[in-house]
Amino acid sequence: MKYILKIKYIGTAYCGFQCQKNGTAVQNVLTEAASRVFKCPCLVTGCSRTDSGVHALGFCATVEPSEMVSIPAGKLHRAFAAFLPDDIAVVAAAEVAEDFHPRYSSKGKNYIYRIWDGPYEDPFEKKRSMRLTPAVSHSGLDRMKRAASHFVGTHDFSAFMAKGSKITDAVRTVRSAEVYRENGGCIVFSVSADGFLYNMVRIMVGTLCDVAQGRAEPDEIPGIIKGRDRSRAGSTAPPEGLYLNEVFYDENIDWKCE
Amino acid sequence: MKYILKIKYIGTAYCGFQCQKNGTAVQNVLTEAASRVFKCPCLVTGCSRTDSGVHALGFCATVEPSEMVSIPAGKLHRAFAAFLPDDIAVVAAAEVAEDFHPRYSSKGKNYIYRIWDGPYEDPFEKKRSMRLTPAVSHSGLDRMKRAASHFVGTHDFSAFMAKGSKITDAVRTVRSAEVYRENGGCIVFSVSADGFLYNMVRIMVGTLCDVAQGRAEPDEIPGIIKGRDRSRAGSTAPPEGLYLNEVFYDENIDWKCE
Repeated sequence: MKYILKIKYIGTAYCGFQCQKNGTAVQNVLTEAASRVFKCPCLVTGCSRTDSGVHALGFCATVEPSEMVSIPAGKLHRAFAAFLPDDIAVVAAAEVAEDFHPRYSSKGKNYIYRIWDGPYEDPFEKKRSMRLTPAVSHSGLDRMKRAASHFVGTHDFSAFMAKGSKITDAVRTVRSAEVYRENGGCIVFSVSADGFLYNMVRIMVGTLCDVAQGRAEPDEIPGIIKGRDRSRAGSTAPPEGLYLNEVFYDENIDWKCE
Repeated sequence: MKYILKIKYIGTAYCGFQCQKNGTAVQNVLTEAASRVFKCPCLVTGCSRTDSGVHALGFCATVEPSEMVSIPAGKLHRAFAAFLPDDIAVVAAAEVAEDFHPRYSSKGKNYIYRIWDGPYEDPFEKKRSMRLTPAVSHSGLDRMKRAASHFVGTHDFSAFMAKGSKITDAVRTVRSAEVYRENGGCIVFSVSADGFLYNMVRIMVGTLCDVAQGRAEPDEIPGIIKGRDRSRAGSTAPPEGLYLNEVFYDENIDWKCE
C-alpha cells in the first residue's frame, strides 16, 4: 500500500523537509510518526527538499509501510495527529499507485512568498514573512507586478539559481507569477512553474524587492534572465517568507480527510 | 508628557496584560521596556486586563515617564522595538492630555474571536484560534449569524458574565455582533460594545458554538439574556481565539508611526 499525504508545517524549527546537516528534518519526524501510525517501519519520500525555515501549506509526501497494513486514507490525518508535534500536520491523504513518485510524478508546484512591509514589526508575522522597509507604495507594488510578469514563460533561469548548484539544465517554465497585497497586510508573490531551481523563488523575491525600492527597473527582468548571470539578479530573500503552497499532479488524486 | 501606545501582542506566553498571579504580564514587560526607552521609571496603564493567553491587535496603554523626557510619538514604535520581545510590538503612538485615561476615556471596544473548524489541526492556527469540530456547515454559520444578531442592543448581560465577578451593573450596549468566515479559513465573531463583562465574549462564543452544533436555537438567545442566568448560556470558549481588536475614544487621537 502506498499513500500520499498532504502536509502543512511551520518550518521554523526544522532544517527543511530533508537534510543532511545537523538538525531535525520534517522527514525524520514524519517517518517516526508513520512508524507509529502503521506500527512498522515506513519509507517516507518527499516532493522536494525545502530549505531550513521554509514553510509548507501543501507539501506532498508518500508513505510506504513495510508491512501489509491498511488504514483508510480519510482517517490518516487523525492518526498522524496523535504522533506529530504541533508544527506539522497531515491535512489530507489518498491511496496512490505503486509507481507514483511524489517528486517525479509532479507536473509543477506553486510557491507563495509573503513580505511584511508595514511601519512596525508585527508579532503575528514573526518568522512567517520577510520584513521589508520602507513600506512599498502603490506604485512600487505596480512595479513589482510588472517585473513579476516577465518571469512567465519558458526561460533559462540560471540567473535565479544559487551559485554552486549542480543543475546543468536551468530551463524552467513559469506558468504564472503574480504580486498582490493581502487585505491591508503582506505583499504576496505567488509563482507556479513546472519546476524550481535551488533558491529560485527567493532570488526572484530579492529581485522584486530591488524593483520595489527603485534599485532595478521592472523591464530589466528580461535582460537579467537572458544574461544568465546570478550576480545581476537580486539577493536571496530569507527563508521565513517562503511557503510551498501546492504540488500539481496529472493523476486525479482522491484526497480524503474525514 | 503622556503618551498612548497601540500595541499588538501574542498572548500565549503571558498571564494577561495585567496580572496578580504568578507569571509574566504584558504590562510588566512594557513597563520595563518603557523605562529603557525613556531612561527613567514609567507608569504604564492599560485599557483593560486581558485573560491569560488572549491576544491583542490594538490594545491601548498610556505611558507616563517620571522625568521630563520628550520623544516624538512617531518614533516610539522603533524605540520600543529595541527593548520588547518578538511577541509584543508598539504599532503606533500619540501624545495625549494629562487627564486622558486609556480605560475610563474609552467609549467602547471591538473584540474578534477566531474559530478553526477545518477537518484537520492547522499548525498555523495553533494558539491563535479555538478548535471546533465537526466543521460548521453553511446553514450552521447562518444560525450563528442569526444568534449573534440578538446580542445587539442594550441588555443586562448577567448570563454572559463569569460567576464570581464583582460587577453589579451588568447592563451593556452591544453595537454590532457579526459572524463571518475568513476566506476559506476560520469563522470570525466580531463584537463591539461600550464595555464588556468578565469573560463576556468567550461565553457568547461558547453559546454560538452550541447554536452552530444544534444544542441551542438562534432564537433562544433573547430568552437566555432575559433570564440573567449564567448556567443557561454556553460554556466559556478558550482564550486563544480571542483578540482585543480596537479601542474606541471620543478624543481624536493623532496616531503616528514613522
